[in-house]
Amino acid sequence: MTVLTDVPGPIDPPHRLLMGPGPVDAYPGVLRAMSARLVGQYDPFMTEAMTQTQALFRNVWSSTADACVLVDGTSRAGIEAAVLSLVRPGERVLVPIFGRFGHLLAEIAERAMAEVHTIETAWGQVFAPSAIEEAITRVRPTLLALVQGDTSTTMLQPLEEIGEICRRHGVLFYSDATASLGGNPFEADAWGLDAATAGLQKCLGGPSGSSPLVMSDRAVEVVRSRARIEAGIREEGDPVAVDFIRSNYLDVGMILDYWGPRRLNHHTEATSMLYAARECARVIALEGRDAVIARHALAGEAMLAGVRALGLTVFGDVAHKMSNVVAVEIPDGVPGDVARAALLTDFGIEIGTSFGPLHGRVWRIGTMGYNARQDAVVTTLAALEQVLRRFGFAAPAGGGVEAATDTYRGAA
Amino acid sequence: MTVLTDVPGPIDPPHRLLMGPGPVDAYPGVLRAMSARLVGQYDPFMTEAMTQTQALFRNVWSSTADACVLVDGTSRAGIEAAVLSLVRPGERVLVPIFGRFGHLLAEIAERAMAEVHTIETAWGQVFAPSAIEEAITRVRPTLLALVQGDTSTTMLQPLEEIGEICRRHGVLFYSDATASLGGNPFEADAWGLDAATAGLQKCLGGPSGSSPLVMSDRAVEVVRSRARIEAGIREEGDPVAVDFIRSNYLDVGMILDYWGPRRLNHHTEATSMLYAARECARVIALEGRDAVIARHALAGEAMLAGVRALGLTVFGDVAHKMSNVVAVEIPDGVPGDVARAALLTDFGIEIGTSFGPLHGRVWRIGTMGYNARQDAVVTTLAALEQVLRRFGFAAPAGGGVEAATDTYRGAA
Repeated sequence: MTVLTDVPGPIDPPHRLLMGPGPVDAYPGVLRAMSARLVGQYDPFMTEAMTQTQALFRNVWSSTADACVLVDGTSRAGIEAAVLSLVRPGERVLVPIFGRFGHLLAEIAERAMAEVHTIETAWGQVFAPSAIEEAITRVRPTLLALVQGDTSTTMLQPLEEIGEICRRHGVLFYSDATASLGGNPFEADAWGLDAATAGLQKCLGGPSGSSPLVMSDRAVEVVRSRARIEAGIREEGDPVAVDFIRSNYLDVGMILDYWGPRRLNHHTEATSMLYAARECARVIALEGRDAVIARHALAGEAMLAGVRALGLTVFGDVAHKMSNVVAVEIPDGVPGDVARAALLTDFGIEIGTSFGPLHGRVWRIGTMGYNARQDAVVTTLAALEQVLRRFGFAAPAGGGVEAATDTYRGAA
Repeated sequence: MTVLTDVPGPIDPPHRLLMGPGPVDAYPGVLRAMSARLVGQYDPFMTEAMTQTQALFRNVWSSTADACVLVDGTSRAGIEAAVLSLVRPGERVLVPIFGRFGHLLAEIAERAMAEVHTIETAWGQVFAPSAIEEAITRVRPTLLALVQGDTSTTMLQPLEEIGEICRRHGVLFYSDATASLGGNPFEADAWGLDAATAGLQKCLGGPSGSSPLVMSDRAVEVVRSRARIEAGIREEGDPVAVDFIRSNYLDVGMILDYWGPRRLNHHTEATSMLYAARECARVIALEGRDAVIARHALAGEAMLAGVRALGLTVFGDVAHKMSNVVAVEIPDGVPGDVARAALLTDFGIEIGTSFGPLHGRVWRIGTMGYNARQDAVVTTLAALEQVLRRFGFAAPAGGGVEAATDTYRGAA
């Protein structure tokens, strides 16, 4: 019995320039790395590649933490691993929400049976540290879960002062840096993070499917206090906690034991995704972390100048915008989804739509990872100008490209 | 601040022939597929590639079920997604254990807060259907969770009669086919499976990191009864169940909504792993599912004849062995791990060690996916003969290769 009528050909994706809020084009070296041959799970080459990847990601996170690994799943697997592993059922979690991904943190904490408290600010704004401290004082949570960069609004929540506040109140501090890491400053140790996770598909310039995670020693202690080595590989004297983490796959303790010197069998590491993650972090090590962040800042500035010069209005508090994505209001009379489809179909360029209160109101344009490049920025602006004009919006001819080029020239 | 003293070069794995119990070498086309360029998450090309992948995997599973998707994680992510989504906390799960991976199913069900009941048989044996029915009658579980092929013992549990038994007793029937799928018969519909999951890294000939999942309509109804659309994308009238699934990432209902016509935003599909999974299933569609299973059967038979002709004793009930892996007792006087290391270092060939009661007692040799080939079988036997001799075991010169070659000749 065969249910197939005909078999499709080998995968052959069309040419796209991915200028949305992510996923974006991978660095060419990352795509090459994924076609490298496989090795065994405990091959000395494999364990050495894992150790190299840990060192490379400590550089990305700006951390010396021992607990620096990949979770084998998309960015949301990393979020769930961190939250599930740090919060016991019934414990309080505080989530300041400034966009869709704050709602996601709350959702994941609720699934973990935490008592979830939220504070919200208008989309397009961020929180003052004092507002977060006030809520911490009131809620007295076990964990503060805070998005750094929320692509739904393009806002970048300042984190510099939050770690100190958390430490003072005895609260664990977790941040979801999926959309921001690698394109904006992130200082895990200096800012007092207890846990942070990300994905490859934004500023790191890789495919979705692997989630870098870093955890402070203090957080690892919490995880260790809930350790439960699984039956089948458990040995005499191994811990079996009663309040164990309610997931085997996303138990950070087991993931650490697999990456650590004991190399305890857990999942079978996703070898090709490991190769990809290693290469993403290697790009940052070679180019220099600060240089990559500066490249994102410049591309973001150029895109911002460009869309403004096209006559478009930028959404939100621009002073707190992530460098790697901008939201522009869809001009009156321009059919947002039709125009976006025209950009994709005629120019092969993808920009993003929006969620929730912004749906139909703004487009989101990203400049991330490999695509934080001048040619990607000006090509997008040139195409956008054409499409806007087609739908009756009088964008100044050449204005966007000129403004972006000027930005690059000014920085040279 | 940079914590890196020097940056390693691009990934450059050594040549290996992976003849262990998995992961194994990927098909060359699968490695090529992963280096294909990325596209956006809702690009028409992407959604079409997802739909093609579903059709290709229905063929692999031998199922017409609508619910046929990939879970973005390793095989154990798929197991946990199935178990968590089908079993409410406190409900009973029956796990017949015949090796390490039965223990894993029990462990995952315990983490899901199920009331777990197990029956066990000696390593190297499988269960008679009557033993499973007796336990079902006694335990009256919500779910029977049963491994098909347990690589720790090499045994293949017959599933043909189990679905009918489950149906008669109103029990949901889940099987973990990670190690067996694609190399041994699996008939999801004909055998009455309600859910089954796998990984790519065994007989499917791909990298670890994506877990194919299939689910019957009856099982999907259970999942749907627990639906909870997450805040942030929830709309008027969307369900919010009280006994929701205790994971967001591994909620099969949300994964189905993402793959289904509504395309509800959930995780960002791991594009490169999707390309890999699609290609794994495409190999099976092109070669023919029965032909691929027959190729595994022949390679397994040849390897079995070969190791026996080398004078090695095969572990377990050979009549119930998976076709794709064989366990051989390590001869007295041969240092198992040292010999295995010599095979890896000198010949670039990997075979497997063992878990639990078999640790140090047997090696496990696989013939899976791309490596279910005559040249891989005889090269491994030739090298194994050399290594055995080096450690003082008098393997008949040329005996293994000759017996394997005869098997292939007999089948030609």
